[in-house]
Amino acid sequence: MTDVSGISHLLETQVSSEDMVRGSFLHARRDIVSLPDGNHATREYVVHPGAVMVVPLLEIPGQDLRVVLERQYRYPVQRVMIEFPAGKLDAGESTAHCAQRELFEETGYRASEWSKAGVIHPVIAYSTEFIEVWFAKGLVAGERKLDKGEFLDVFTATANELIAWCLDGRVTDTKTVAAALWLQGYQAGTWKPVWSSSTAN
Amino acid sequence: MTDVSGISHLLETQVSSEDMVRGSFLHARRDIVSLPDGNHATREYVVHPGAVMVVPLLEIPGQDLRVVLERQYRYPVQRVMIEFPAGKLDAGESTAHCAQRELFEETGYRASEWSKAGVIHPVIAYSTEFIEVWFAKGLVAGERKLDKGEFLDVFTATANELIAWCLDGRVTDTKTVAAALWLQGYQAGTWKPVWSSSTAN
Repeated sequence: MTDVSGISHLLETQVSSEDMVRGSFLHARRDIVSLPDGNHATREYVVHPGAVMVVPLLEIPGQDLRVVLERQYRYPVQRVMIEFPAGKLDAGESTAHCAQRELFEETGYRASEWSKAGVIHPVIAYSTEFIEVWFAKGLVAGERKLDKGEFLDVFTATANELIAWCLDGRVTDTKTVAAALWLQGYQAGTWKPVWSSSTAN
Repeated sequence: MTDVSGISHLLETQVSSEDMVRGSFLHARRDIVSLPDGNHATREYVVHPGAVMVVPLLEIPGQDLRVVLERQYRYPVQRVMIEFPAGKLDAGESTAHCAQRELFEETGYRASEWSKAGVIHPVIAYSTEFIEVWFAKGLVAGERKLDKGEFLDVFTATANELIAWCLDGRVTDTKTVAAALWLQGYQAGTWKPVWSSSTAN
């Protein structure tokens, strides 16, 4: 156990930085860093614009809380994954706008109330990616507008089903498992969203 | 809402595959895939050997459940992160061995009992990475053996503190937030580990 005052004994500082590869999707950089002991090391990582994930709530009085989910084939892991709607930020786009856009494009739903739950970092060893997590309620169904080349199913499950699927291995997408912790807190009353209308964003 | 029978309407199949970049850490490939509608698309992704994460439990009768955590600077996200011990599989290494090795090397603890909680996929859009999640108990403290160039603090917190930190934004590492869902299930009795001795692995 280390007695820690401050974080200076952990910090790495940039010595140099260069592009490693620029693909049509993947952009990676290679930096030389100075370690806390003064030695140098290489850090290779993906540069990512950031993303949002939406937890869409279907609250019907007298019924169990339900959520809107997607089923989508994810090529790098070679399997169909159950996930919450999510997507990358467009250049210059606010996270609130991205959340509303991705929910509508992928599921057809528009939400009247939104609450930011937090930010998660999915790949801290080799990507700059962050995912801002939004809860949405007051859903109105419409016609979705998938991107060209995008194929996914939309379905609903109870919040308790989703949490059980995370624990028994049917859901393995880490961002969705993380969102289930907020969902559990929401149901238990230990995490309280602060709702605001979508027009406020 | 789509009525779905089977998953063939979602699958992508490989048409070709080539190395995109091979760094000292990062290895990426670029594949051409055939989409469900027959059109082609490009998939660029990181090739990763897989990893393990360990949730080390400190159970002292009459006291709140505690867990062992790390504080480590993560260069791609430019901040000190609170995380459970984790690390990549060595070539040919079993996940059980990797779990024991990483726990010992990073924290100095050896555990007498182990239980696999599940597998999570942290980066389904652009990495093959999986993380196998292990719970460990019966901890005995020893002297850790950090890799050269590795700098991290080890500390403990109660399970309830960790869960609160995930919900209030002090913990944003997604694998650690996901592990907190199992930890919550463990405390609530809704997820039950199946323990076996470390020598069995």
